[in-house]
Amino acid sequence: MAETLTLLIEPLPADAAVGELDATFREVDASAPALRVGELSTQRGDGIFETIGVVDGHAQESRPHLERLRNSARICELPEPNLPQWEAAIARAVAALPTTGEFALKLVLSRGVEHGPAPTAWLHVAPAADFSAVRERGIRVVTLDRGYARGTAERAPWLLLGAKTLSYAVNMAALREARRRGADDTIFVTSDGYVMEGPTSSVILRRGDVWSTPAPSGAILHGTTQMSLFEHLEASGRRTEYRDIPVADLATADAAWLVSSVRLAAGITELDGRPMPYDADETRALNDYLLTPRD
Amino acid sequence: MAETLTLLIEPLPADAAVGELDATFREVDASAPALRVGELSTQRGDGIFETIGVVDGHAQESRPHLERLRNSARICELPEPNLPQWEAAIARAVAALPTTGEFALKLVLSRGVEHGPAPTAWLHVAPAADFSAVRERGIRVVTLDRGYARGTAERAPWLLLGAKTLSYAVNMAALREARRRGADDTIFVTSDGYVMEGPTSSVILRRGDVWSTPAPSGAILHGTTQMSLFEHLEASGRRTEYRDIPVADLATADAAWLVSSVRLAAGITELDGRPMPYDADETRALNDYLLTPRD
Repeated sequence: MAETLTLLIEPLPADAAVGELDATFREVDASAPALRVGELSTQRGDGIFETIGVVDGHAQESRPHLERLRNSARICELPEPNLPQWEAAIARAVAALPTTGEFALKLVLSRGVEHGPAPTAWLHVAPAADFSAVRERGIRVVTLDRGYARGTAERAPWLLLGAKTLSYAVNMAALREARRRGADDTIFVTSDGYVMEGPTSSVILRRGDVWSTPAPSGAILHGTTQMSLFEHLEASGRRTEYRDIPVADLATADAAWLVSSVRLAAGITELDGRPMPYDADETRALNDYLLTPRD
Repeated sequence: MAETLTLLIEPLPADAAVGELDATFREVDASAPALRVGELSTQRGDGIFETIGVVDGHAQESRPHLERLRNSARICELPEPNLPQWEAAIARAVAALPTTGEFALKLVLSRGVEHGPAPTAWLHVAPAADFSAVRERGIRVVTLDRGYARGTAERAPWLLLGAKTLSYAVNMAALREARRRGADDTIFVTSDGYVMEGPTSSVILRRGDVWSTPAPSGAILHGTTQMSLFEHLEASGRRTEYRDIPVADLATADAAWLVSSVRLAAGITELDGRPMPYDADETRALNDYLLTPRD
């Protein structure tokens, strides 16, 4: 079976009846050119995306990812995506994959070609990197100032802070800075010292029996993996909370994780050069749950 | 003659001897796919660009644009561009254009395909929009908070504020917000109230005989058009200065402009809904200068 697949998608209006979809998908060779140079995704980072984990033939939490895609589209004033069409594209891609193993499935909705009539869209799925060692041994993390004070997103929605846009150059630069500092990943903090999120992950910490994550606001993405984990923890009788988290609270937590759709839960072993308590058992339990089929 | 041209460029190392360049350029049809979906320019807005005005067969200020491209590459840790190769690509494109009229020539240097061996690069030139009415009549502008306090760029270089990256989703969203407010364009201001720049332009103001622009810092791009204009003004015996400009100084200026490589000097007729003095004679003189061949 194929290990990678690229589908170009002709995006339907949100309210279009979804009938014959096959004509709206076109499989292309990922190594062949598929996009024009006039693409606003490439000229302006002007589009949105989602990355979904596929585990043993199951796309994890497709619906929450698609709902976040719809929310990003709203913030960016892109045409509302037709979720059944995207679901069908995901199903078609997953059906082509082996039924075992982990894959990363990326959805992109671009504003389209400059002065063009319509957005462009595609899906690309490929084998996930092997994160087993990272899930087992954890990661070293540094905090980096995101430059925004708490409350900025609400005051300035044009900064698109709650949208998962393609304009990720800063996220990539922050990861390079983390590596330069001898770390594996980073957590963005507000200029006034509150925990935000990783460039491609959400932050969760545990203090005693209470699991916390930064309060949802316009400034951070609602993490699909974080939400799934909190539901699971609550169902197991654990206490969870959303709140403003000063950096000092992170540094003194009993354990902390970066969680994301493909790497899943990575325990933080070191924060800004100082060791953090690492909870191997909880980390294993979190990843065991995250590797089960989830909708 | 062709009115549009797209050249894919195989970027040479900065120190490569520039011999047979033709093999490193490949002309493609702009309406045909040229880029892979794995392009980091499109997945992550991870690349840099420049837009050069071409007037009557002359590429304006190529060298300052290429030097800014090199500076953006340094900030983004991209391989240093080979400027003679880019100059040759520009020359080849310009030679294919009509010798009259205005064109916009865009250079893009992307980090390349994910996990790929090398950056990708291209050049695209097309007729400029007709800005004659805008140059004559001016623009209405609103100020928008960029969310960063003065000094942020110096403290947090991973925010890439001084680089002209492809991650322009916020710039585009700010322009949409300006239009929603009944304006034509916007000026970003710091969260503590200092003038920064437009999303695709620099700010110049005049108070009496003194022409001012925000002090160069890590937070804004050095405007090639602004620098060219200041050189010209100084050569004509006018006084120019770089300084921190509080928003109130902009609102009470004797005249103000947004200047950029293709639209050139656009006088501000209205700021945040209040009329501004519009200097038709100076505006005409600025654009007359900007339309002469400049290197």
